[in-house]
Amino acid sequence: MGTEGPAGEKMMPKNPDCACPRDCPRHGDCEACITFHKTRPNPPDCMRVKRRPAPRGTGRCLLVAGGPSGDRAGVELKAAPGDLVIACDAGYPAALQLGLKPALAVGDFDSYGGEIAPDVEVVRTPVRKDDTDTMTGLRLGLSRGCRDFVIVGALGGRLDHTVANLQALCWLCTQGARGVILSADNRAWAVRDGALELPRMEGWYLSVFAAGECEGVTLRGVEYPLTGARLSPSMPIGVSNEFSADTARIEVARGTLIVIASRREARDTEKNETAPAGAAE
Amino acid sequence: MGTEGPAGEKMMPKNPDCACPRDCPRHGDCEACITFHKTRPNPPDCMRVKRRPAPRGTGRCLLVAGGPSGDRAGVELKAAPGDLVIACDAGYPAALQLGLKPALAVGDFDSYGGEIAPDVEVVRTPVRKDDTDTMTGLRLGLSRGCRDFVIVGALGGRLDHTVANLQALCWLCTQGARGVILSADNRAWAVRDGALELPRMEGWYLSVFAAGECEGVTLRGVEYPLTGARLSPSMPIGVSNEFSADTARIEVARGTLIVIASRREARDTEKNETAPAGAAE
Repeated sequence: MGTEGPAGEKMMPKNPDCACPRDCPRHGDCEACITFHKTRPNPPDCMRVKRRPAPRGTGRCLLVAGGPSGDRAGVELKAAPGDLVIACDAGYPAALQLGLKPALAVGDFDSYGGEIAPDVEVVRTPVRKDDTDTMTGLRLGLSRGCRDFVIVGALGGRLDHTVANLQALCWLCTQGARGVILSADNRAWAVRDGALELPRMEGWYLSVFAAGECEGVTLRGVEYPLTGARLSPSMPIGVSNEFSADTARIEVARGTLIVIASRREARDTEKNETAPAGAAE
Repeated sequence: MGTEGPAGEKMMPKNPDCACPRDCPRHGDCEACITFHKTRPNPPDCMRVKRRPAPRGTGRCLLVAGGPSGDRAGVELKAAPGDLVIACDAGYPAALQLGLKPALAVGDFDSYGGEIAPDVEVVRTPVRKDDTDTMTGLRLGLSRGCRDFVIVGALGGRLDHTVANLQALCWLCTQGARGVILSADNRAWAVRDGALELPRMEGWYLSVFAAGECEGVTLRGVEYPLTGARLSPSMPIGVSNEFSADTARIEVARGTLIVIASRREARDTEKNETAPAGAAE
């Protein structure tokens, strides 16, 4: 079904909703479609291949965002059976580089205009929208049943996106889900009204930041423990803690904490070895 | 007063508090001091030059943190009369590279062990402490009378430090002060219970993030305006707004907003052109 186009793309028979300005009998046959497709790698609506919907997630969602390649250098991520792999815009080629096969590609595709394999479900969003492509990907993952997100390519690019992605982790907590962002030199989690346990990471600092007012913050298994403390987003006293046990436990009775592990020997030259909150205890 | 040491450093007469393990009549004359100084660029306590205290700030505080050099590429910053220049640890050589002459160098100096000019006041902090070197620098600037901070070298390195530095901007607001962080591709401000006006920045996105719950958020002069909205740190809907007038005005009736301008053509590959909060209005 469908015909092969000039660039090897599949073209589908016209349907009544076709946005093509010409009344060609078959998609991609008219000059407007072909010209458009030649200059823009993504086909217009009338030329889009109907793709099989991606399966519902039964396990984790592996979400690859479009951050710079250095951000994901060395990140190893294997999809297990049941994992749903979602690529956001330029995260599509990034996912392939990571050895992941996306089931779903989402975005306005202003950052990536290359080919997308025909068996990948594509969810195209408008350029003008409230959510970033990454947030749209997370919403999709949630709607497909995933509650456990592993996100790559979400740090190390534009600072506004980095902060938005950290806040997206907090948002996942409000949805009964949880996420981790993995990158070359940093990892991030959010924990809301609960606890997070992390196995010791040799050579990494561990920092906690309040996303909003936090009460009952308790840190165990770290060099500078805390018990029942209040933290605020206007007082960064949780920077550069260190693992002191096989497991670090970060607990917050009320509120949301962003937890960041940063590699000690990152590309940064600022190595402030600070004793964070609790050091004076 | 004092004698010149083997590396050109000034040595001061012994005082009763000298930590030198040898009872040499003058500092730096004993073998222990000289050996220490030869192997560690920073002199031990007994060899430290007494420096003239930096003047009180009568204008801005220019604070240079130790972020990676790429972070400050292209940042132009000139000290005006009355400006107090503070360098934090590895920010000292960075300040010199920027053409700034620090009056004050602060930190535990685990990142920078080189020479510091003798007329620079040095405030040495312990390695184990609650504050990062950058926070210590801000506290010093405040204590010397500054209320207007321009910070360089505070983004683009370790993610934990970047987030801590953004929260430090929020902290400045609680101290009746204000700050801006300048970097190659990003600029950041914080505004608390008030308004921030920014002249149009061509080629930059403008994003707002709630640091804690925010009420009465009004954005004017931007592509996606907002009026009296509530924003939360668990919902990143203020990403990638754009200037639409000569001045953008960001207002928050109650709470603290972090405002980030990110260069459109940064090194990032994710260019999600999203319509943030208010786009649907």
